[in-house]
Amino acid sequence: MADTVLFEFLHTEIVAELWAHDPDPGPGGQKMSLSVLEGMGFRVGQALGERLPRETLAFREELDVLKFLCKDLWVAVFQKQMDSLRTNHQGTYVLQDNSFPLLLPMASGLQYLEEAPKFLAFTCGLLRGALCTLGIESVVTASVAALPICKFQVVIPKS
Amino acid sequence: MADTVLFEFLHTEIVAELWAHDPDPGPGGQKMSLSVLEGMGFRVGQALGERLPRETLAFREELDVLKFLCKDLWVAVFQKQMDSLRTNHQGTYVLQDNSFPLLLPMASGLQYLEEAPKFLAFTCGLLRGALCTLGIESVVTASVAALPICKFQVVIPKS
Repeated sequence: MADTVLFEFLHTEIVAELWAHDPDPGPGGQKMSLSVLEGMGFRVGQALGERLPRETLAFREELDVLKFLCKDLWVAVFQKQMDSLRTNHQGTYVLQDNSFPLLLPMASGLQYLEEAPKFLAFTCGLLRGALCTLGIESVVTASVAALPICKFQVVIPKS
Repeated sequence: MADTVLFEFLHTEIVAELWAHDPDPGPGGQKMSLSVLEGMGFRVGQALGERLPRETLAFREELDVLKFLCKDLWVAVFQKQMDSLRTNHQGTYVLQDNSFPLLLPMASGLQYLEEAPKFLAFTCGLLRGALCTLGIESVVTASVAALPICKFQVVIPKS
């Protein structure tokens, strides 16, 4: 039971620690902390990607890889599936989680929206890292219009 | 499956991050990073302590609280129980894990022993934090004589 919350507690501590010791609390410092978080997420995502069962992925489409992340990766990390996945069929995917666990501890007032990015950077990295392990280079960003709904946008450049 | 390793991956990243960005790689800097890790562990331990089932703890002895940590807390975090618990019956407890999961990724050579403390600080804090939530102030240290065997010493000052 506790390992469900263990990741969330630890993530909260990492965010708090990075912001507490940030040498530059301005936009530049914030950018560095976000980048550090994204990098940690990337490496954890890479490692997780190697351990998730991938037999069923062979010879499948890009869309199937994204579905796999929305289901298997999300369940492994957050004990729930992503709520929706949309695509323009040109390499852009929007993954929506209607109650993103890392945003749940925040009150849902609009005044907390500006705090949201620091709770999303790790997970953007996680998605990018898992995709990288699965052989797909991507750019992952996240946005929040209303807490705790979160949209992750995955853009896969055509090679 | 993956959340078993998720905590370990994330812990590894935190250690790497703290040591990579340590402003002072000397003994003073190392001490600060260890203290940061211990503090993160403490707060996670406090939070976990609040969520573990404690009904059975009411009106019990200090030793029972320690047994609870060796069993319930350890299983929640590491999916295994502590291997042994000894006490001098004067407030000192030695908890031994014969294959401590956070040390397992390290090769078992003697040359890695000096690297061990950075992989123990978080867990020392975790024990101290959980004990604190359970109403017991303590000092927790850890030592490794041969990888991956780890001893945690919990000293509870008599009030």
